[in-house]
Amino acid sequence: MLTLEKIQAAKNKLAPYIHETPVVRLYGLDDILGCNVYIKAENMQKTNSFKVRGALNKMLSMPIEQLQKGVVASSSGNHGKGVAYAAKLLNIQATIVLPDTAPIIKVEGIRALGANVVQCKFADRQAETDRLSLAHNYAIIHPYDDYHIMAGQGTVGLEILEQLPHVDTIVVPIGGGGLISGVATAIKTLAPHVKVIGVEPAVISRYAKSLKAGERLLLEEQKSLADALLPLQPGKLNFPIVQKLVDNVVSVDEDSLHSGMKTLLLDGKQLAEPSSSIVIGAALQGILPIAKNDNVCFLISGSNVGLNQLQTFL
Amino acid sequence: MLTLEKIQAAKNKLAPYIHETPVVRLYGLDDILGCNVYIKAENMQKTNSFKVRGALNKMLSMPIEQLQKGVVASSSGNHGKGVAYAAKLLNIQATIVLPDTAPIIKVEGIRALGANVVQCKFADRQAETDRLSLAHNYAIIHPYDDYHIMAGQGTVGLEILEQLPHVDTIVVPIGGGGLISGVATAIKTLAPHVKVIGVEPAVISRYAKSLKAGERLLLEEQKSLADALLPLQPGKLNFPIVQKLVDNVVSVDEDSLHSGMKTLLLDGKQLAEPSSSIVIGAALQGILPIAKNDNVCFLISGSNVGLNQLQTFL
Repeated sequence: MLTLEKIQAAKNKLAPYIHETPVVRLYGLDDILGCNVYIKAENMQKTNSFKVRGALNKMLSMPIEQLQKGVVASSSGNHGKGVAYAAKLLNIQATIVLPDTAPIIKVEGIRALGANVVQCKFADRQAETDRLSLAHNYAIIHPYDDYHIMAGQGTVGLEILEQLPHVDTIVVPIGGGGLISGVATAIKTLAPHVKVIGVEPAVISRYAKSLKAGERLLLEEQKSLADALLPLQPGKLNFPIVQKLVDNVVSVDEDSLHSGMKTLLLDGKQLAEPSSSIVIGAALQGILPIAKNDNVCFLISGSNVGLNQLQTFL
Repeated sequence: MLTLEKIQAAKNKLAPYIHETPVVRLYGLDDILGCNVYIKAENMQKTNSFKVRGALNKMLSMPIEQLQKGVVASSSGNHGKGVAYAAKLLNIQATIVLPDTAPIIKVEGIRALGANVVQCKFADRQAETDRLSLAHNYAIIHPYDDYHIMAGQGTVGLEILEQLPHVDTIVVPIGGGGLISGVATAIKTLAPHVKVIGVEPAVISRYAKSLKAGERLLLEEQKSLADALLPLQPGKLNFPIVQKLVDNVVSVDEDSLHSGMKTLLLDGKQLAEPSSSIVIGAALQGILPIAKNDNVCFLISGSNVGLNQLQTFL
């Protein structure tokens, strides 16, 4: 079970190794988005994404004998970079399984930390990860379907509450559901009046559809600008937490995703990757339940975006 | 004379109209720049530059009868946008004289605030401003050579000291010298141990050369990526203040200017214009007297940079 205590323990464990990223007030976006705009700047986190929190918390909880055999993780890139960072810190070997379509900056960022990279078709990632685990006795570090991972990601929620006690609403990108499970658990235990809203790409709205159906639906593979938000099904452990604690999950179309990134860069002056600026896209699309004087914290989850992608965007 | 009291008075006067921009800790740049990196984020200021502070402070100090005849200002763009913003607020007419080479985003930003724009050759700006002033009885709002302007810009220094009391060094872009005169006066009165370093483009190092010569030299017109730092001579009122209070002025080459912008965007995740990211370029060039554990505040003075410029840069 995921509890506040586990998230608080993760916070202490992670403190020496990660940044307490700032909450930044972006006045320049208030009129555009229709609320008092704050961001939690995980785009400035080590490895340039929040994923390092969960990966490191998970690996710090594992027995050293197991770690020394090596670890393997399937990832769209950011979780892999988090695992690679943790592996370097712990002086162990990591292998990261990425889809062929992963942005170059993510592939290179992982290699630069000393991890092996194996690339395969998106659909084959899990099978390849299982194969490597079996063949080499590598422990699998799941990107979201794991309580230690969720507890690590939940530390973002604790920090937001400390840094912005008068927050009304927190807007969080959803892929598999690791980040929002952790954040919602922290927030709803300590400050149940604060709304937690999830945001996913409309082309692959696995949470909105599953919540409606009351069960974890498996969607078909799709392309989206949000390259880190492509999981086809809510996580098994994550889904009930999201069902219970998250106020709302909204779906953002690709045009708004694109506008979200441009607005955050040109008006907010912040560089983030599309899977993070999706939260700004949701506000632009007008689908967030927010009002003019609400203090809204947009969780900017990462910024592993390359020059080549930026050029395409702009 | 410029005094701390005038800067404090400006702070109170400006408070209802501008943002207290954040000081943001950019951990991701520490290793790259070789110090503890903070930015004062005037890239997030109203009008997207600090210039609104001086323009507004000046115009709020003028008699209403004079303002109602209209104002005129020569500018590379940001001062003009500040004057246009103040004019809109005070419901008076502003005319801004810009060089033909001003970035489109600055021209459009000024027009969007309702001011008239007159464009001419860079060399003809002052004559055109004087002509308009004479012909229409417009009051001239000088971009830097004015104590009210300097007092307004100096409020940035007051805010830095409040927000980051343990700052060791503040790094400030210099054009005519309005910003650094105000900041140095505030800092050296309240915290004389804090170093204030000026940064200008090497191709037009009017301050470094004038300080060496002991008098205000008039340089020849040059091109630089730093389109807001092109004044050919230190301001008359500014020069003695810089002589007396600024610890050092360094000159940044165009390559480092370019790298500074890229580093601030891709590693710092902040969008700024070249005339602001020049302070990052100075650190990259290795010409700042800073050390590993110093708390260095880089004054990111503005972010009026268009998509077209960004594309050229990246």
